Amino acid sequence: MNPILVNVRRGGQVESFHRGALAIVDADGAVHTALGDIDRPVFPRSAVKGLQALPLVASGAAEAFGLDDEALALACASHNGEPAHAATAARMLRAAGLGPEALECGAHWPYHDVSGRALAAAGATPTALHNNCSGKHAGFVCLGCLMAAAQGQDPAAFVHGYVRPDHPVMREVGAALQAATGCDLARSPVGTDGCSIPTFAIPLRQLALGFARFGTGLGLSPAHAQAAARLRRAVAAAPFMVAGTGRFDTVVMDHYRERVFCKVGAEGVYCAALPSHGLGVAIKMDDGNNARAVELVMAAALHALEKKNEADETLLAGLAPVRLNNWNGIEVGQIQPAPALTDALPRG
Amino acid sequence: MNPILVNVRRGGQVESFHRGALAIVDADGAVHTALGDIDRPVFPRSAVKGLQALPLVASGAAEAFGLDDEALALACASHNGEPAHAATAARMLRAAGLGPEALECGAHWPYHDVSGRALAAAGATPTALHNNCSGKHAGFVCLGCLMAAAQGQDPAAFVHGYVRPDHPVMREVGAALQAATGCDLARSPVGTDGCSIPTFAIPLRQLALGFARFGTGLGLSPAHAQAAARLRRAVAAAPFMVAGTGRFDTVVMDHYRERVFCKVGAEGVYCAALPSHGLGVAIKMDDGNNARAVELVMAAALHALEKKNEADETLLAGLAPVRLNNWNGIEVGQIQPAPALTDALPRG
Repeated sequence: MNPILVNVRRGGQVESFHRGALAIVDADGAVHTALGDIDRPVFPRSAVKGLQALPLVASGAAEAFGLDDEALALACASHNGEPAHAATAARMLRAAGLGPEALECGAHWPYHDVSGRALAAAGATPTALHNNCSGKHAGFVCLGCLMAAAQGQDPAAFVHGYVRPDHPVMREVGAALQAATGCDLARSPVGTDGCSIPTFAIPLRQLALGFARFGTGLGLSPAHAQAAARLRRAVAAAPFMVAGTGRFDTVVMDHYRERVFCKVGAEGVYCAALPSHGLGVAIKMDDGNNARAVELVMAAALHALEKKNEADETLLAGLAPVRLNNWNGIEVGQIQPAPALTDALPRG
Repeated sequence: MNPILVNVRRGGQVESFHRGALAIVDADGAVHTALGDIDRPVFPRSAVKGLQALPLVASGAAEAFGLDDEALALACASHNGEPAHAATAARMLRAAGLGPEALECGAHWPYHDVSGRALAAAGATPTALHNNCSGKHAGFVCLGCLMAAAQGQDPAAFVHGYVRPDHPVMREVGAALQAATGCDLARSPVGTDGCSIPTFAIPLRQLALGFARFGTGLGLSPAHAQAAARLRRAVAAAPFMVAGTGRFDTVVMDHYRERVFCKVGAEGVYCAALPSHGLGVAIKMDDGNNARAVELVMAAALHALEKKNEADETLLAGLAPVRLNNWNGIEVGQIQPAPALTDALPRG
């Protein structure tokens, strides 16, 4: 039974609450903080996009196709589908000589309502470029195009079906994930993600280990260590690309830059690397709640570990606790870290 | 500790799950089914809009202002903000001689994305008429206007501030809720709802009792019993008004008509009256999850109690379990009633 990590209060009473587990681990696997069951395999979903992007850089594809900070940050992103996100995904594909039709992630309306309404107002409908995973997929396509070139094959034909677990691109991506987390993916429960690639269930302990390694390079191959540093620099330089307007990842990394690499995943997962502490963080909410639950837990973890100055304090105080306002803007409650969480974390 | 009522599976593994409590009670308060803690007070939020609409009919206001089935159904609604919903709320206010400026619920973009995008495409922004609670509030305004007329007061001045707990309209609404549920609201924890009216915390046992009474008239005053029957007929005749395109309440009541009166509330609450069984149902999910969790529990309860024929079976099989499809339309998992829930309910 995982502890309550977040309470939602209304009128002084707990209206709803969220249980979950949290692991904070260093690059040797030593546990800094553990709350709940950190050894149950959980699907990390989009939280591991940074680890999945390692081959894009380590292979030389990023350099070969001239991918800049914006493009590399988008490769790690669950983005809002705002115009700059869709344009950057299109640019990545063009660099590799292909078009949006190469993407196999499916289409959905932008997460960002304003952008969705603007599309509708222009008489347009969303494409795969607006899919929150389009940058990750564009990165897969770039990797595939480099592999095709190395083998003298037609790029479009080679990358076709890249979402399949047995495709050379996806095998390379899985190998990077396995190397970083130390988890034997051949023995992991496997599901299909929202964008059709496989998602492997990995315990929080090993996800946190993977992010400690991603943040420090310790325990990674030299090529992956360099790639991780390049990706962290890219996201720090272009944090808008990793999420978008008003999103937690963008707000946090726009402030912390290279001090924090954090990434949300569907179903209440969050992972982060805190390089200066040598630590990785991995969180999963039992109920899969993203916006209000797992973000708040991540904010509490940052408050405990990455609060160095007044600017940090101001940012974090704006993220947790969260005021619950109604449609008239009246404060009617709060979303707060629960005692089990604040007691387990170091005093910030 | 409430039991797990819903499992979310991906790739054969439980990815997330939802705990909660369920009470099924008859109009005498006898417990038919209890799962979890049914005596902890919970905020019913919008689930009790039907009970809150009793004074609108019992006072004679509905008749005085010529409110038809559509209008009465909208008074019980958490609607999508589709054009017909906004137009009906405007019509209710006009019947009472007032305009949209009388509404104190605040404005928000329609729940129905297509309607929101159509508004945006027309260069418009949402008004209080698009607020999901606009029908309930229009009903409060109608009630207030009748009270003002009876006292020879100016309607607009009288209804002003009707959302305040001590306003005559809200006192009447609270009295109806107290009479139906048998809960002493003066001793209940109280919060402010999304639309600014007070919400009183009431145990599931008493919410279910209130709905058993609402469905049968037993235990209600004659005026409230008649009003309940009128509201149930109205919603059965105009189920689109109570929610809208694709919404659970509309789909279920469009099929069941007067056999079921059900109503969702924010933060994972659902209530229902099953008149032919003389039963009321009340559900609250711990984590406040609405769409995928509490709807599924209600579908399971209906499957157990209200499956009479093949058409019922077809409808309910389409509601639970739910296929989880990804952006490419591939089935990647299922949302299912958990064993604790199916074991507690009668075999459907």
